[in-house]
Amino acid sequence: MTDENRPSTDPYKGVRDFYPEDMAIQRYLFDTWAVTAESFGFERYDASVLEPAELYRSKAAENEEIVNEQTYTFIDKGDREVTLRPEMTPTVARMVAGRRRELPLPLRWYSIPNLFRYERAQRGRLREHWQLNADIFGTTDQNADVEIIHLAASIFTAFGATAADFEIKINNRAALTRSIEPLLRPGARLNDMLKLLDMKPKMELERYREEEMKLLTEPFETHSEVPSEVASVLAALAALGVHNAVYEPTIVRGFNYYTGTIFEIFDTNPENRRSLLGGGRYDNLTALFGGEPVPAVGFGMGDVTMRDFLETHDLLKSIPEKLKPGPRVTVVNDGAATVEDAARVAALVRDRGVNVSSNLSDKKLGDQLKLAERSGATFALIIAGDTKMELKRLSDRSITRGELAELIPHMQ
Amino acid sequence: MTDENRPSTDPYKGVRDFYPEDMAIQRYLFDTWAVTAESFGFERYDASVLEPAELYRSKAAENEEIVNEQTYTFIDKGDREVTLRPEMTPTVARMVAGRRRELPLPLRWYSIPNLFRYERAQRGRLREHWQLNADIFGTTDQNADVEIIHLAASIFTAFGATAADFEIKINNRAALTRSIEPLLRPGARLNDMLKLLDMKPKMELERYREEEMKLLTEPFETHSEVPSEVASVLAALAALGVHNAVYEPTIVRGFNYYTGTIFEIFDTNPENRRSLLGGGRYDNLTALFGGEPVPAVGFGMGDVTMRDFLETHDLLKSIPEKLKPGPRVTVVNDGAATVEDAARVAALVRDRGVNVSSNLSDKKLGDQLKLAERSGATFALIIAGDTKMELKRLSDRSITRGELAELIPHMQ
Repeated sequence: MTDENRPSTDPYKGVRDFYPEDMAIQRYLFDTWAVTAESFGFERYDASVLEPAELYRSKAAENEEIVNEQTYTFIDKGDREVTLRPEMTPTVARMVAGRRRELPLPLRWYSIPNLFRYERAQRGRLREHWQLNADIFGTTDQNADVEIIHLAASIFTAFGATAADFEIKINNRAALTRSIEPLLRPGARLNDMLKLLDMKPKMELERYREEEMKLLTEPFETHSEVPSEVASVLAALAALGVHNAVYEPTIVRGFNYYTGTIFEIFDTNPENRRSLLGGGRYDNLTALFGGEPVPAVGFGMGDVTMRDFLETHDLLKSIPEKLKPGPRVTVVNDGAATVEDAARVAALVRDRGVNVSSNLSDKKLGDQLKLAERSGATFALIIAGDTKMELKRLSDRSITRGELAELIPHMQ
Repeated sequence: MTDENRPSTDPYKGVRDFYPEDMAIQRYLFDTWAVTAESFGFERYDASVLEPAELYRSKAAENEEIVNEQTYTFIDKGDREVTLRPEMTPTVARMVAGRRRELPLPLRWYSIPNLFRYERAQRGRLREHWQLNADIFGTTDQNADVEIIHLAASIFTAFGATAADFEIKINNRAALTRSIEPLLRPGARLNDMLKLLDMKPKMELERYREEEMKLLTEPFETHSEVPSEVASVLAALAALGVHNAVYEPTIVRGFNYYTGTIFEIFDTNPENRRSLLGGGRYDNLTALFGGEPVPAVGFGMGDVTMRDFLETHDLLKSIPEKLKPGPRVTVVNDGAATVEDAARVAALVRDRGVNVSSNLSDKKLGDQLKLAERSGATFALIIAGDTKMELKRLSDRSITRGELAELIPHMQ
């Protein structure tokens, strides 16, 4: 076969292969997300990555740019326009709206979907990532805002982070509107000012002031007092032991659908100043599907930023043993026992709840032990012709001898 | 907003939404698959659903019809042809070929990918399903064939099925070739006869015989003796306690890449006679990417057929408590305690390892208890102004009274 006919071993541009060692980290993220969400009584849902494209036209989309330029949208063979979901919120709003009458509100729901954005390749950014999405549907009560932020903070502590490692910045869309509207020049639009404010951290201050003065009659005072909606959320979080939350008047979250509390979590490490998580209240989104709207508050956090955070704070060392790839024990056979004997002994060990593999080919014992070590096994169980066996810890080569029943407890 | 502008609440045609009660079943399937594969020392990997379309052109594809007519393939904005993976084997072959030199062969790898097939809508079949894929790479040894079939059988028993519920049918591509080739008419192709044999169960016998006589000089005797390759696999399985495997000479698995042992598992229930799982040895596939091939044997089993099997045999009742959607406990507050008090008590309960939610809005106690029941909670923890609480089991309304520390053990 010529080189030109060979398919590449690379994945598609901008997506990742997860070899076992990366998959173990990915599962650690997902398991910690799931366990923490469920500790708050959240239930898991899911949906397909394929959605009708119409779902993202209209206010259901968080961001116009994403809909117009950054989605994977194609026409299927039945002339339907299909999109690979760029975010989960429109999907979950669709699902809740579809069963609004039967579902037991309030709902606490979470999901760990993969999302697609078609970003320009030269930016070097990923086109697929995974995200924890958690939402409470069916109540306008501020206690739901507090609970969803409490959950977000608890996820960081579940990974071993301390309150000093991250900061929760909170604002409120209604308060933002109240303070901006009196300042708007005639004809200037609130949304334009929100967009500008959202861009502020990425702009030079002089340029920002210039643009601001086109929209407002006087500078928007970002050091004004804490709005009452934010103050009460901060107080309730403090009562629950969450003390690393602050009011941040420049948090806007540039999305169409937020209506109340909005928040983001930032890494406090100066080398990793990225937003790690963002969310807020969106009470009107399900109205797009008809009928009375179901109020909602939720957030999303991505796997890539989460992993960066864990690496920055040296928190990946705590991956539990059971998530490490590879078997706990590999059964190897010396000359007197066969490969088939090894498979039978492995089946007995497995029945006792130990993850175990066995040697598959006729090889010298030394070569089998080397393979066992490379496979990531913690122990090799060496069987000979009789019932006495040797359990060898591969890290320090220490050996325990005995019959199988005696050795099982040493494998745990 | 007019009806015409409303997006539908239905998912895209041919894919499924997983509301929490369906997601719980899905997770039970995936968890059982994962735990069983890991008990054999298999390591989990994953990759994106997006693959370069070229991966499926050539022998890497299991079936020409699928590549030509049944894939979701589209052109991205960078003029790359992209496919939503229709099967996992080409992906895993790509990944193994890409790191052939570094990977510690033999590999035991598994994954639970979603796969897409663009089938005609009128057939009513799903366009997306999930599949357990398990493979051993790096050895031609028959012990690997035996182990992969042992794993397949163990998955059924892990769900509570007995050996009488399913049957493993085994054949061998090399043996099939050996017995067909001497019978071929001049000019007739082996592959045409394999395809015909694969279709036999779906054809009328008369029509099959007619087609067969065009290709062969005499009828292919399907009741010939067991080929030695199959006999030794059956013997090794029996030695491991797997007694429901048989030789089945009409098993062909109509895919290009199989080279040795091939097998399928069937439900023995006459009402659900579908193939539940299929696989085999494919020793040459990775050669497509250049270099020496890495021999492989593996199988795939789908979530939809697995769920049908479990329903047919009434095996879904064993879903573990921890997979059931909803919190274990909901904290409700009577008039003397507030919603904020409920959130604080819930946090204390959560710290003791119990999945717990709390009431979010000012409501009468009776209404809060009704909501707790609808949410799927097993217990309501009723708090009043003092430290005495009531733990109410919602199924039988039995009540235990005490301080929080006394009640925690009753929540397990």
